[in-house]
Amino acid sequence: MRDFLPAEVRKRNYVIGIIREVYEKYGFEPLETPSVENLETLTGKYGEEGNQLMFKILKRGEKLQQELAEGKIKSENELSDLALRYDLTVPLARVVANYRNELPKFFKRYQIQPVWRADRPAKGRYREFYQCDVDAIGSTSMITEAELISAVSEILERIGFSDFTIRINHRDILRGMLNAVRIEEAKHTDALVALDKLDKIGKDGVLKEFAMRGIDENAGVKLLDLFETLESAGNSQTLERLSEFMSGQETGQKGVNEISQILKFSERKNIKVDPSLARGLSYYTGAIFEVVLTSGDFQGSIAGGGRYDGLIGMFGKEQIPAVGFSIGLERILFVMEERGMFPAELTASPADVMVTLWNEESAAESLKLAGELRSKNLRVLVYPEADKLGKQFKYADSLKIPYVCVLGDAELAEGKVTLKNMRTGEQTTASRAEIAEKLKADE
Amino acid sequence: MRDFLPAEVRKRNYVIGIIREVYEKYGFEPLETPSVENLETLTGKYGEEGNQLMFKILKRGEKLQQELAEGKIKSENELSDLALRYDLTVPLARVVANYRNELPKFFKRYQIQPVWRADRPAKGRYREFYQCDVDAIGSTSMITEAELISAVSEILERIGFSDFTIRINHRDILRGMLNAVRIEEAKHTDALVALDKLDKIGKDGVLKEFAMRGIDENAGVKLLDLFETLESAGNSQTLERLSEFMSGQETGQKGVNEISQILKFSERKNIKVDPSLARGLSYYTGAIFEVVLTSGDFQGSIAGGGRYDGLIGMFGKEQIPAVGFSIGLERILFVMEERGMFPAELTASPADVMVTLWNEESAAESLKLAGELRSKNLRVLVYPEADKLGKQFKYADSLKIPYVCVLGDAELAEGKVTLKNMRTGEQTTASRAEIAEKLKADE
Repeated sequence: MRDFLPAEVRKRNYVIGIIREVYEKYGFEPLETPSVENLETLTGKYGEEGNQLMFKILKRGEKLQQELAEGKIKSENELSDLALRYDLTVPLARVVANYRNELPKFFKRYQIQPVWRADRPAKGRYREFYQCDVDAIGSTSMITEAELISAVSEILERIGFSDFTIRINHRDILRGMLNAVRIEEAKHTDALVALDKLDKIGKDGVLKEFAMRGIDENAGVKLLDLFETLESAGNSQTLERLSEFMSGQETGQKGVNEISQILKFSERKNIKVDPSLARGLSYYTGAIFEVVLTSGDFQGSIAGGGRYDGLIGMFGKEQIPAVGFSIGLERILFVMEERGMFPAELTASPADVMVTLWNEESAAESLKLAGELRSKNLRVLVYPEADKLGKQFKYADSLKIPYVCVLGDAELAEGKVTLKNMRTGEQTTASRAEIAEKLKADE
Repeated sequence: MRDFLPAEVRKRNYVIGIIREVYEKYGFEPLETPSVENLETLTGKYGEEGNQLMFKILKRGEKLQQELAEGKIKSENELSDLALRYDLTVPLARVVANYRNELPKFFKRYQIQPVWRADRPAKGRYREFYQCDVDAIGSTSMITEAELISAVSEILERIGFSDFTIRINHRDILRGMLNAVRIEEAKHTDALVALDKLDKIGKDGVLKEFAMRGIDENAGVKLLDLFETLESAGNSQTLERLSEFMSGQETGQKGVNEISQILKFSERKNIKVDPSLARGLSYYTGAIFEVVLTSGDFQGSIAGGGRYDGLIGMFGKEQIPAVGFSIGLERILFVMEERGMFPAELTASPADVMVTLWNEESAAESLKLAGELRSKNLRVLVYPEADKLGKQFKYADSLKIPYVCVLGDAELAEGKVTLKNMRTGEQTTASRAEIAEKLKADE
């Protein structure tokens, strides 16, 4: 887990600020949930791996201590009833089920908060990291998918990315294709897990996994051949070809229709229908998305999401449809750093101007000047000790503060201030009232 | 622990926004630390009560499971090596010690993040709550204290509070007074704990506690009498009287001098020297502060802090002086709610305008219009389904959205939009280009 020093926080807040602003333009509202959830809320929602990677919180109180001392506790399960949030989707589903009557029928929310996973730390993978989720609850209309794609794309463009593709597929297309090559339902999950690794392990790897899991390799060959022929096809050609491949299957056809609608509602040129896209999470039920960069070294997606019409029903009486996107903040920050995409102001100084301190007698005057400058919305640092002037200048320089106000005996006697421009070394003397104007004019 | 629905998040972000802005004007920089710290970093820093109230995280892995099954684990201490952050001061001290060379000599930081305490939940007390801390590291100058008081006061005023007093005292004055009435050093902590409760348990309560802890009651009477005579005294009178009370004691005199300096550097009229102020945390070494409201029902402080020159040294080789303030966000929000202090815009609608949806054929046009309006920085909601128009209006009304754009067959044929003002019911028809202008003009 990481400490973020000021320069890093500024970069993070810059990106988070853009995300917030764009989501709010699309009518999404902010939600925040507690870091700690009941263990039973989280258990079973993320598969076996998720259960392993959850940070669980030790029960509290004397009873625990006594039971331990007596050797009564034999299993980890008796030690914990709470856990740290693992993602933002399950908490959202819980909130929607709990507060149904207080929320609008179509609840559009964004949520930017940390989540925790006890993963082995690696480059670009952290045990505490932020998720930036946006979800639209309550509608089965593909308008919702189109709006989400539009919002996420606008965020990426505002941040400065122009080289991304939105890969799109549908759970029903995946099911339809697997049915078409006669892979039995019971093996669908295994087959998808293997297909999901295509990018990483290649065709041979996928076929090996098929064999290992007792799935007909021939079926695998047919699927991989289909993917290959569609790699360079246009979207409408791909959808047509998929329709043929799954002919006679209602489910698959529904997937094709929904993807067609999304494409019709969305005017973006960088959407690519990709039947090989599987996405790991088991709660997806409809369209699925993944945003990838098309140039540079970075592998993997920078955003992803999909429709999950079944999850909220697990927490309440009602089945409520939902679709969402998650932006990979940590990955985006990593690429931005590599590509030098942060605006220069972000790495600048903590203050617009520093006020020097002459001696203890005049300290109140320095503070007063600082107050005057702050009232003009300038960011002002006061050097806190009556050090040598040279040392104070050096300090301002080390923090890249562009201006220094000197209040010495002469200045105090005349009611003036000497202003030093730290870049040019130029010094001017002016009345205190004029100083703020001079500084503002330079901004 | 609480879920914050959108209206609540907006209120919280409004206050946090003011806090950030003012701190940055004073040259404080943002810092963020992980939610989870090593248990050994936190243990022993908050006294016995703190150790009890920490949320500890269960160790992970198969080894733990096996040791449990074999009955090898006899104590809670073997089950956990991490814990949730308990405050923001100890993580700051760790950061300053760890990154000494990367940070400026005078490191001014603010940090606004949640902390966790396994306290019994009560009105206004939560197990997860935000702290808004500001600290200045590296200087022993009282300028630092004065600047902190100024920044915190400006925040409270910007939020809308005018009825607050900053109570100020000094650890050395407390020590000096206890010495003056001949309470032995070993009993100082006990005596301070009792005095700290004066507001809650009254004079008799304090004297009872003195007796219980084996401290001379006569000494207690002398202290309480002193406090009483100083209650309505002015600050300079109080300091003079304290000097006399502690005459001949260097430590006490140092405290008086530092408080005098702070008063000289600060021009505020609402600072009150209060020798009965003790503050619980044991790491304070110099001036201590507490901000209280002077009218209304709310009991307790809304901000507090002090100098702690010894804490950072516990994490590194160097002793580094430090002073800080913590703003009680949850309490402030509570009082603001009671007093109705939030600006009206905050509770307003999630969007400036809603675009209706006529049918699936024209959906792309509705989305396009929404895009045009968003490009003018309007917050736009698109009704996601082709419902009856009346139902769509009703929905906009329920969300208090002030305007609705209708795009029906007639409008589409003419390339126009009907704009309905939801407050007045007035409808006007205009070209798509004009619509954004009309809406912006009304803002």
